[in-house]
Amino acid sequence: MKKKSFPLSRVYGLLEPGPVVLITTSRKGRHNIMTQSWHTMIEFEPPLVACVISNGNYTFDILKTTRECVINIPTVELARQVAGCGNTSGRRLDKFKAFALTALDASMVGAPLIGECYANLECKVIDSSMSSKYLLFILEVLKAWVDPSRKNPRTLHHRGRGAFMVAGKTIEVASKMK
Amino acid sequence: MKKKSFPLSRVYGLLEPGPVVLITTSRKGRHNIMTQSWHTMIEFEPPLVACVISNGNYTFDILKTTRECVINIPTVELARQVAGCGNTSGRRLDKFKAFALTALDASMVGAPLIGECYANLECKVIDSSMSSKYLLFILEVLKAWVDPSRKNPRTLHHRGRGAFMVAGKTIEVASKMK
Repeated sequence: MKKKSFPLSRVYGLLEPGPVVLITTSRKGRHNIMTQSWHTMIEFEPPLVACVISNGNYTFDILKTTRECVINIPTVELARQVAGCGNTSGRRLDKFKAFALTALDASMVGAPLIGECYANLECKVIDSSMSSKYLLFILEVLKAWVDPSRKNPRTLHHRGRGAFMVAGKTIEVASKMK
Repeated sequence: MKKKSFPLSRVYGLLEPGPVVLITTSRKGRHNIMTQSWHTMIEFEPPLVACVISNGNYTFDILKTTRECVINIPTVELARQVAGCGNTSGRRLDKFKAFALTALDASMVGAPLIGECYANLECKVIDSSMSSKYLLFILEVLKAWVDPSRKNPRTLHHRGRGAFMVAGKTIEVASKMK
């Protein structure tokens, strides 16, 4: 679980392929985890992410209050935990304990990093004005970490109803795109 | 290229895994195509999509004016065309002609469907109030089409700098998630 600092200018490459993520928050010393797929990059640097958190989720109020979270990116080895965190609520369950996940201290926010995830993005909420109408929060990534030993992380991509597409091989195409 | 109508309630399963898409628009009889990865579902039904279109893109003004587009979802067989449409601008190029793609009539919008794409979502812009500050457009999917012969579409997921992750196998995990 040795994490390495990752350049903010390259964070878009982690989220752009559309992985399922685990969003961690913390309030009054109590950590929580939420499974989430509805997010998109909206700016390269500083990296900004638009992220949908339903007001039915326990995380919604915590995010409104603390204005901090960590976006943790899991791989296929964690599929059971990803589904588990999506099927339960932090109102009634300590998910770190229930799913045997490791909370590590972040460097810039109070929410914890999930040690088992190959990448972790420490975020602050910079705009919650669209959280009433569209349940959208705009997050700025303050600090990013990756596990440098994971060369081709097999991320999970939710297709609905418990089906996840697993990241396959990477191909290279001549591109002028960033 | 036989397209079948697809239920709006299941559209989220097409976009949630984070595929690169080709957004088509049309103005004054002239069609255009833009390669795009920065989008997220924000509502199940009617399906709403938040989508970033830079004001440097030719598509930005067209979308502001016509308030219609089609989100076309390509698979790995179209990788060359996807990169090509991302490397060029519709200001100077007829991309349908340049990349030998087929424009089919949509049923509810003026923008064309790309025949070669396995799924096509006809959309209208319902909110462009965030297009100045965050380049975000909120789209409503009015009508969806899929090619029923494509059972496990190998979508492309952009990792940046011309690298695309290809959709791998699908796994099933016990889930109470929609």
